[in-house]
Amino acid sequence: MTRIFTYDSTLRDGEQSEGIALSLEDKLRIVERLDAFGVDFIEGGYPASNPKDIAFFERVRAMPLKHASIAAFGSTCKKGVAPEDDQGLADLVGSGAPAVTIVGKTWDEQVTRALLTTLDENLRMIRESVAYLKAQGLRVVFDAEHFFDGYKANPDFALACVRAASEAGADSIDLCETNGGALPHEVEEIVRTVAEALPGQQLGIHCHDDSGCAVANTLAAVRAGATQVQGTVNGFGERVGNADLLTVIADLELKMGCTCVGAENLRQLTGVSQFVAATCNLSVPTHHPYTGASAFAHKGGLHASAIARFPEAYEHARPESVGNTQRMLVSELAGKASLVAKAASLGIDLAAHQDKTQAILDDIKAREAAGYSYEVADGSLALLLQRHLGAYRPHFTLESFRVIVDDHEDTGALAKDAMSEATIKIHVDDQRFVATGEGAGPVGALDNALRMAITAFYPAVNEMELVDFKVRILDENVGTDAITRVVITTRDSSASWGTVGVSENIIEASWNALVDSIEYGLMRAGA
Amino acid sequence: MTRIFTYDSTLRDGEQSEGIALSLEDKLRIVERLDAFGVDFIEGGYPASNPKDIAFFERVRAMPLKHASIAAFGSTCKKGVAPEDDQGLADLVGSGAPAVTIVGKTWDEQVTRALLTTLDENLRMIRESVAYLKAQGLRVVFDAEHFFDGYKANPDFALACVRAASEAGADSIDLCETNGGALPHEVEEIVRTVAEALPGQQLGIHCHDDSGCAVANTLAAVRAGATQVQGTVNGFGERVGNADLLTVIADLELKMGCTCVGAENLRQLTGVSQFVAATCNLSVPTHHPYTGASAFAHKGGLHASAIARFPEAYEHARPESVGNTQRMLVSELAGKASLVAKAASLGIDLAAHQDKTQAILDDIKAREAAGYSYEVADGSLALLLQRHLGAYRPHFTLESFRVIVDDHEDTGALAKDAMSEATIKIHVDDQRFVATGEGAGPVGALDNALRMAITAFYPAVNEMELVDFKVRILDENVGTDAITRVVITTRDSSASWGTVGVSENIIEASWNALVDSIEYGLMRAGA
Repeated sequence: MTRIFTYDSTLRDGEQSEGIALSLEDKLRIVERLDAFGVDFIEGGYPASNPKDIAFFERVRAMPLKHASIAAFGSTCKKGVAPEDDQGLADLVGSGAPAVTIVGKTWDEQVTRALLTTLDENLRMIRESVAYLKAQGLRVVFDAEHFFDGYKANPDFALACVRAASEAGADSIDLCETNGGALPHEVEEIVRTVAEALPGQQLGIHCHDDSGCAVANTLAAVRAGATQVQGTVNGFGERVGNADLLTVIADLELKMGCTCVGAENLRQLTGVSQFVAATCNLSVPTHHPYTGASAFAHKGGLHASAIARFPEAYEHARPESVGNTQRMLVSELAGKASLVAKAASLGIDLAAHQDKTQAILDDIKAREAAGYSYEVADGSLALLLQRHLGAYRPHFTLESFRVIVDDHEDTGALAKDAMSEATIKIHVDDQRFVATGEGAGPVGALDNALRMAITAFYPAVNEMELVDFKVRILDENVGTDAITRVVITTRDSSASWGTVGVSENIIEASWNALVDSIEYGLMRAGA
Repeated sequence: MTRIFTYDSTLRDGEQSEGIALSLEDKLRIVERLDAFGVDFIEGGYPASNPKDIAFFERVRAMPLKHASIAAFGSTCKKGVAPEDDQGLADLVGSGAPAVTIVGKTWDEQVTRALLTTLDENLRMIRESVAYLKAQGLRVVFDAEHFFDGYKANPDFALACVRAASEAGADSIDLCETNGGALPHEVEEIVRTVAEALPGQQLGIHCHDDSGCAVANTLAAVRAGATQVQGTVNGFGERVGNADLLTVIADLELKMGCTCVGAENLRQLTGVSQFVAATCNLSVPTHHPYTGASAFAHKGGLHASAIARFPEAYEHARPESVGNTQRMLVSELAGKASLVAKAASLGIDLAAHQDKTQAILDDIKAREAAGYSYEVADGSLALLLQRHLGAYRPHFTLESFRVIVDDHEDTGALAKDAMSEATIKIHVDDQRFVATGEGAGPVGALDNALRMAITAFYPAVNEMELVDFKVRILDENVGTDAITRVVITTRDSSASWGTVGVSENIIEASWNALVDSIEYGLMRAGA
């Protein structure tokens, strides 16, 4: 079993994707999930490009990771600058990350036409930067940018670049197929040449999917001797995206006799795929390999009867091995056993309620068909389970709310002068409370009104803070009357939790998610 | 230049995709388009499976195709039945299609466990069916089902099956990677073995994408000697889909020195991709190789300056060669030249206003920092430019609006009982209009009120329809007070356009995007 190391670039290359913007909290939650999945290296981004990235490296240092190493990303020192005087390298060291990845040029024309310096200076920049970072006690990956185009144009120079990195002590030299144009047979041949030229040097591979071959190119590199694979969850990335690290891992583990995260963790594959997509405010494409909802679904007339008699003929892998399910069952919670396990992780013992499990599964299925998604809404799921078990006691009940948004005059497109006011009428036990809250937006106003109404009864609400608010329009092509899904993340001093609300009305969807977030928080607090 | 024949299975295997259902007219329009594109064979479906397919073959016989041949799809004769007595083969002949494709089993266990007959009988079914159809003067493709799994399990039997088809006169033997589990190196090795075993026999390849390698597997087969490639437009198909015929064609033409449709027709690639997707009521995925909207889009901070100096380093192919365009995401309209070009594409001549270009760029930059994104909001960008040029005349001005959302009682999480009502006060020239609209949600209510207020003055508003409504929360980790970005897509009979609004208040952001969508539509309509 060849051990192949996994290097995730979702937080850096993935975030380059059109349509993806991750908050600091998003990034930290993705780190947590990838660590639990068993990824070896998680690239966090540029440690000094903006306040969010600086804060990321501060926060992530305090996280108790059980397996993964965080990598800070940057470039070799600048031309004409010694590594000890280079601000970029200082930022990498200052990030506190145990691993650093520096990108350097290996295509002669990139050096002379884009970087505007000499080939010798480029070699110096690589050699001295790697040596400097190694001397700081860091694990160093050298990302050989445009390596395959560079090798085709000038093999001697491209090899000289990676040899410089190798001799300077780079722990891994990751060959980057930067513009995504190479095909598997080219990648395999070139990686083999490098492996022969640098015996004993760990090599890695970083591919983009512009020719539709990113996964195959990555596998071809492994066949030729690479033992580190870079990629992003679901293949997110700029242009057509990066190699999908999840598909690569599944192919390596299930078809090429390699070990990446191990068979046990591999069952998290579909969950990781869905979690990261949801955190990016995207969906996993239905037809995504291994993790898509249709990946193990069958409808072909030709096959229907054959599947029953000979399932292995129509499943290239067991769906359970990657945490997916055969046929139309969309959710991670498709099977009773996994629902029981999920419930246990929320502190709810479903095993003692075997008779109710099917009804709960049916309810989840109906809700998911209506637009709910429980992948990132543990709080709402826990409340749903408690309702089915008769263990749910509402802390308050709504009589009515009214939200008013007032706006005056056109004051230009950057205007922030609209005011929102929410009045809610709430019952706690036999008491009735009326409270009004204001906010910059209608949901903030509702949140303020609700807290004001119940704070006397439930002071724990003051410990809770809304930290994330996501809106997704489902069936977007029906315009403003489409179904809206709102996902809210709330935290108190000990944990954070997600809740979900769905409605044709964006305010009502927000309210439902808000109520769940407070209810679940109060339940957790024992209120 | 090796000539590689293209065989499209969109109308048969593509229609197996979850979510795709094509009408007869849809199918005929796709045939017409694929024929113009230069595809060699178009598989039409089973000629007798249902009335729609029967009608298809009748109708398509009457179409004046300039290049493509239609193929009818079916199976070998049934076990124990002579070909001349087999209804399926009779239907194929009766379809009037000049080519027929018959699928047959080549995996020993499929024969004994699924088909429930002997290996010898399976060989007879293949041999006699091919010979029978050849005797009718048809071009015959033999689809060797499960060939790669079959070969791995019992190479002698798998080879005996394709040898039987070859000796009976099959024009092409297309090796099918039916369950999608094989990897490129396996495909290449096995196809090479078959090519050596059957010298002079045309071979084809049919792949599915379950391992994320369908395109690469297809290219590997071509390297090993296959000269016919099967696939579907955009890779549509059951489970995770088939090999994307378009990506395969582009890779073969641009990277492997082969000819499929020729360089001239290759420029239709993006158009074909969009046409077929739209006909299937789907969109081309933004990140699709070659034909997606992001396939040649750039925004990475690392690359921005390099692209300008050395474009070939970040484009693996010329976008024009496949009918796509390079796209600088507007955040990179940092340069005056690209802003002028973008304006020209919107029909606005900035070149005549050199003095204002810098102020416009500064404004765009400030707005993008505040949360605006013009990547998908050409309508708002055009209005912004017109405002700077003094060419913008507002069609109406807002005095005020008030939106009220009322909700009563907790009626469960699937409740849709909230009502929204919007009242707006608007001035058109010197007249004041007050109008109230209702809606399932607050934005729908505002939209209805606005249309009601201005319809008498601007009847063109009735031609416009909101078709898409997206909400993104920026800086999500500040909770419900975060900045909200709303992007709306609107269309009239001739075009569609995007507009964007940003505010701390989700209703105000929606209003701003809504106003831009109507203003731009009226400007386009000359109102």
